Amino acid sequence: MIKVSILGAGNVGYHLHAVLQNTADVQIVQWYNRTNTPLLKYAGTTPTTNNISELKEADVYLICVSDAVIEPLSIQLGERSGVVAHTAGSIALSALEAFKNHGVFYPLQTFSKQKEVDFKNIPLCLEANNPESLALLQQLASKIEGPIHLIDSAQRKALHVAAVFVNNFTNHLYAIGEEICKDHQVPFTVLQALIAETADKIKTLSPQHAQTGPALRKDKKTLENHVSLLTDETQKQLYTTLTRSIQQFYDK
Amino acid sequence: MIKVSILGAGNVGYHLHAVLQNTADVQIVQWYNRTNTPLLKYAGTTPTTNNISELKEADVYLICVSDAVIEPLSIQLGERSGVVAHTAGSIALSALEAFKNHGVFYPLQTFSKQKEVDFKNIPLCLEANNPESLALLQQLASKIEGPIHLIDSAQRKALHVAAVFVNNFTNHLYAIGEEICKDHQVPFTVLQALIAETADKIKTLSPQHAQTGPALRKDKKTLENHVSLLTDETQKQLYTTLTRSIQQFYDK
Repeated sequence: MIKVSILGAGNVGYHLHAVLQNTADVQIVQWYNRTNTPLLKYAGTTPTTNNISELKEADVYLICVSDAVIEPLSIQLGERSGVVAHTAGSIALSALEAFKNHGVFYPLQTFSKQKEVDFKNIPLCLEANNPESLALLQQLASKIEGPIHLIDSAQRKALHVAAVFVNNFTNHLYAIGEEICKDHQVPFTVLQALIAETADKIKTLSPQHAQTGPALRKDKKTLENHVSLLTDETQKQLYTTLTRSIQQFYDK
Repeated sequence: MIKVSILGAGNVGYHLHAVLQNTADVQIVQWYNRTNTPLLKYAGTTPTTNNISELKEADVYLICVSDAVIEPLSIQLGERSGVVAHTAGSIALSALEAFKNHGVFYPLQTFSKQKEVDFKNIPLCLEANNPESLALLQQLASKIEGPIHLIDSAQRKALHVAAVFVNNFTNHLYAIGEEICKDHQVPFTVLQALIAETADKIKTLSPQHAQTGPALRKDKKTLENHVSLLTDETQKQLYTTLTRSIQQFYDK
């Protein structure tokens, strides 16, 4: 039995609680959040607290708070013999070096409370300051049954930037697609099969080889038509910058 | 029985041939391509030709050639009583106005020959110059069983720009993600679950509401860290432009 405390009830804390609650050989000792409100509906199933000084002993403390709060919160934990791990993509392992056993337990996924996720498909990127702590985090990760990757802090930082490109920036391109559809009275659903296929294609084909479209073909006429159809200056600029980036990528 | 001729053996022609070949009540009368080579392996199952003057009569002619060649090729068809339709996103219906019956049969999807697609999920955007031609294209589309949308030329042009954003540009962001991974010895597969979930999420949540990340949060420290981690000037510029675009989008 691995005893786990979850600190934070944001998106990551919420989903880690949901999966660990139903994971065999894992016991959620406590769920802490700064305010009680998001914890109230779980009080019947999981011990909850909004008082950090009440935090009990656990084998693993999973810190699921926003980047800026990781260090100030960790200081309040006092001395702990369990593994204190954060779950952030862009924070180094060393942020928790005050603890004898510390690590990183980074689920590489986008989480919203409105959408359930399947942890069996979520890569868990692990790192720790000693082999025993790493082994314990690996044991915990293996119980969730997701793919496990040993990723050091420098790699994780790069991975986080890459994640911003393929997730945050990609979602923004979807939002622009939706806006263009709205402006022309076309239902956005028309684009959903294309979006799904674009994401699906790269499971078997490197995105480098999957590239198509007027930018790659250097189809000047279509490119000019597209830019002149866009009325929003930011959209125009994005179109031009992304087109140039594609052309430079393949001219290399 | 609808008699169809396919003109062109590029990605769209290839996939339309594949699906129509197996569609009940549809007969592929002929498959034309400028050169014989891509047709050779189908010569046993479909009548093929590389001589446009040999083109027989059909109910529907599907022109599946690149945008710039649609008009010059169509001139060579001479007079036709069947519906002559192109399959291009960014070409107006009027490009074929020389024909008594003309239309557009635009499958909104990204096609590569290496990857099979399921036409049951591919929106077919239809337009025609008269109700009879539109009815025939609708009948053909309904046999393929994909979702049908009646989209006029102006809407289709906008849709094509939107498709460039959600497909070509998105794929380029995947390619950059892959490049960053390579540069830091991280397998690109680590990002695949995130890519799949990002695309999946917008089936139930508008991308406008699904946005997350440091740009939206205006998390200056992370944004600066990310830009300083990128060494490629084009990547830096993309990061900055997309970040600014996200912030302007939500400040509106």
